[in-house]
Amino acid sequence: MSEKRAVVLLSGGLDSATVMAIARDQGFSCYALSMAYGQRHVAELAAASRVASALRAVEHKVVSIGLDSFGGSALTDSTIQVPEEMGEGIPVTYVPARNTVFLSLALGWAEVLGAHDIFIGVNAVDYSGYPDCRPQFIAAFETLANLATKEGVEGRPFQIHTPLIAFTKAEIIRQGSALGVDYGLTVSCYQANEAGEACGVCDSCRLRAKGFAEAGVPDPTPYRSQV
Amino acid sequence: MSEKRAVVLLSGGLDSATVMAIARDQGFSCYALSMAYGQRHVAELAAASRVASALRAVEHKVVSIGLDSFGGSALTDSTIQVPEEMGEGIPVTYVPARNTVFLSLALGWAEVLGAHDIFIGVNAVDYSGYPDCRPQFIAAFETLANLATKEGVEGRPFQIHTPLIAFTKAEIIRQGSALGVDYGLTVSCYQANEAGEACGVCDSCRLRAKGFAEAGVPDPTPYRSQV
Repeated sequence: MSEKRAVVLLSGGLDSATVMAIARDQGFSCYALSMAYGQRHVAELAAASRVASALRAVEHKVVSIGLDSFGGSALTDSTIQVPEEMGEGIPVTYVPARNTVFLSLALGWAEVLGAHDIFIGVNAVDYSGYPDCRPQFIAAFETLANLATKEGVEGRPFQIHTPLIAFTKAEIIRQGSALGVDYGLTVSCYQANEAGEACGVCDSCRLRAKGFAEAGVPDPTPYRSQV
Repeated sequence: MSEKRAVVLLSGGLDSATVMAIARDQGFSCYALSMAYGQRHVAELAAASRVASALRAVEHKVVSIGLDSFGGSALTDSTIQVPEEMGEGIPVTYVPARNTVFLSLALGWAEVLGAHDIFIGVNAVDYSGYPDCRPQFIAAFETLANLATKEGVEGRPFQIHTPLIAFTKAEIIRQGSALGVDYGLTVSCYQANEAGEACGVCDSCRLRAKGFAEAGVPDPTPYRSQV
């Protein structure tokens, strides 16, 4: 086929929207994949749907997985509070094995689609300290993907693209703005309400607000509290 | 904790039942994990539940994942026929990235439970030629697991146990029988009906029947056709 297909993991946040714009700019037909994994709110998935549409995904698939039945994270277990301050080390918003699960599902869909390119918006600079956002994790997943699949074994390898991995949040926002991303469509907050309004106090809100300020780009986010 | 916990991937088939008996015999408290991934039948999950109960799982969790929405396999896509003869190469019953997805979910649950041992019944001898059943795939997943997780990064590594990987089907059956596994509870057939009756003609039925014959153990499987 002459069409270059890519699976893009799309959370509805700022990073993955930028990634999708980059994939499109590189000439890929984008197949957007979102996960319903027991998030505290549905605002994220609504945002993913808006972004997929705005950036002309060929298809947007939402796969439900029961990560909430495992618990263990403030993002999937309603008995754990989302903290209002950034701490040291790996935070309670860490979802065990999340990116491993997401990339595995992206790999399965990519193989069915005949796509060999998977895009994910992980970032190892302005991030929350999650182990599954680091370059060595991504490299290990790519090795795994090419041992795990018919395509990989038969010599048509998969590539995991992480165009944001070395960017600061400000650089991500500048790059996306240059590609025409409407960040007003995205939601980053760990506890956004159904209308998509952000709390203004969680790690993710702080990183986002700081990114817009540093990029010198107006922040379109509707915050409930002053950041 | 003094209790040794393990997550055991339990499909309801002969292999994973044997694996769970082995994990128990090694002193592990077993947390059984099954996936509802759009299988053609529900007999497999009913069998998993019977096996988990018979082998005293501490807990049995069934996680739904939408692999069927991807299609691409005779096991998840009802427009693809399950073949009645074993062919060459990787067969149409191959589910893209299945074991990668299953192990990723097992990893997530293990981390929440404080378990560092994951058991999976892959087998590289009497198997159907799936790439994600090979030792090099398992080794790559273990490497990934220890880069992907808080536990791995903090020096408490995960181990993926594949006690059947070098066994013939007959050896699996002999080992399980010695540990008291009731194979009458298990279902291996790719197209079992709701009562758990096997087709007798798919790859999986053929391998199973041959295994019992070679092991010299009576085959308790209710086949609809003569194998």
